[in-house]
Amino acid sequence: MTHELRMKVRDYECDLQGIVNNANYQHYTEHARHEMLLGLGVSFADLHQRGIDVVVARISLSYKAPLRSGDEFLVRSEVRKEGVKYVFRQDIIRLSDNRLSCRVEVVNAVLIDGKLAAECPELDRLLS
Amino acid sequence: MTHELRMKVRDYECDLQGIVNNANYQHYTEHARHEMLLGLGVSFADLHQRGIDVVVARISLSYKAPLRSGDEFLVRSEVRKEGVKYVFRQDIIRLSDNRLSCRVEVVNAVLIDGKLAAECPELDRLLS
Amino acid sequence: MTHELRMKVRDYECDLQGIVNNANYQHYTEHARHEMLLGLGVSFADLHQRGIDVVVARISLSYKAPLRSGDEFLVRSEVRKEGVKYVFRQDIIRLSDNRLSCRVEVVNAVLIDGKLAAECPELDRLLS
Amino acid sequence: MTHELRMKVRDYECDLQGIVNNANYQHYTEHARHEMLLGLGVSFADLHQRGIDVVVARISLSYKAPLRSGDEFLVRSEVRKEGVKYVFRQDIIRLSDNRLSCRVEVVNAVLIDGKLAAECPELDRLLS
Repeated sequence: MTHELRMKVRDYECDLQGIVNNANYQHYTEHARHEMLLGLGVSFADLHQRGIDVVVARISLSYKAPLRSGDEFLVRSEVRKEGVKYVFRQDIIRLSDNRLSCRVEVVNAVLIDGKLAAECPELDRLLS
Repeated sequence: MTHELRMKVRDYECDLQGIVNNANYQHYTEHARHEMLLGLGVSFADLHQRGIDVVVARISLSYKAPLRSGDEFLVRSEVRKEGVKYVFRQDIIRLSDNRLSCRVEVVNAVLIDGKLAAECPELDRLLS
Repeated sequence: MTHELRMKVRDYECDLQGIVNNANYQHYTEHARHEMLLGLGVSFADLHQRGIDVVVARISLSYKAPLRSGDEFLVRSEVRKEGVKYVFRQDIIRLSDNRLSCRVEVVNAVLIDGKLAAECPELDRLLS
Repeated sequence: MTHELRMKVRDYECDLQGIVNNANYQHYTEHARHEMLLGLGVSFADLHQRGIDVVVARISLSYKAPLRSGDEFLVRSEVRKEGVKYVFRQDIIRLSDNRLSCRVEVVNAVLIDGKLAAECPELDRLLS
């Protein structure tokens, strides 16, 4: 299951080094994951309202080539289930030269009413 | 009713011009307002849980002298009630030279269960 | 001189009240102003590199109807020159119901090599 | 070489799940690293001005227990050199119950005039 989202750097996301601040790559990939879910008919905010919280248990980001003011980029996401976890692998591709800017792996757990859930039928259905 | 909060610039709050990005002054003053309320025994998050939302109806910010990496500053806040609105006047003072960095006026309304409330006894009690 | 930019709320922009945090409207309008300039061939980052800084002297925001998770919106911007200042008037329109979400007025000054400039030929040319 | 920084959640850092948004833990640890350097007499912003950029090559964050509105926390940082990289290990401790909230490992590289540097005498001196 894969998904692509095209985005563009906003200047306020750049820091005093003149490049996008590291934490914003995490924001980009969060937004891409939520848009991917939304494309499948699942809203992160609606899930929360119903007591289902998809939470990040672990994330790792490898920074390869910085994004700068004006850059457009693609967030390419894929997800698979591993045990009770949902694992997203996401690449941020800088479109000016198609270079990999950042590679991200995110391990998500699901909490139902605040408790770790062994499965989330709603997400499982989407992934099958 | 006045309140003072001492803070320090975090580097990620600076943008590519090397100064604190404008929107972060709004963050600083929001945090100072919430700390002011907390000092009076009122938690913004608790209010929300109980269906009471203090929302900004209008804010104006006048930027006088920029904050930069490493700067410490003071947010000096005062609040008064005007009709059904709570009006905060907040000054951000740069501590290296005691210059006014930013002057802010914030008009807050109170929503109870999503409806504009003519009064919020809890806040009124604090202001009297 | 007018400009329109279509955007979409990202979930991380919402706060614990479940609506877009106030400071993010300032981010949205900053991005729209920079995109407007870019459409005219002027990059905010390039200007900074050449010692020209467009800075916000004053901004006021009137919040009318909140943006929430999933909302799409339009930022409609117009700019005119008043004396030595560039004044932007910006409306954020919530697209689900075409309601005005936020009305913003921004007064910009231009610094050249850190000094307030009476005029910026580059911007003046664009506005004429 | 270790460092501790005490901080407090600001409400705008919480998202619609009512907990601190994941990317903000990255912000907290960046701020703690910069404060650690500053305590050693090295300013991140000054380094940048002189053409020396400390950049994150890789970061991993393990989320253990969420931070919420009002929480105070400690960022405990230690750094060591491994080859040409500076490796920070950082723990975010929630002070209400002394639980580990987030464990972070950050691998930094140094760019001098935009090129990967085998060593940064200024930082090496601090670590010896």
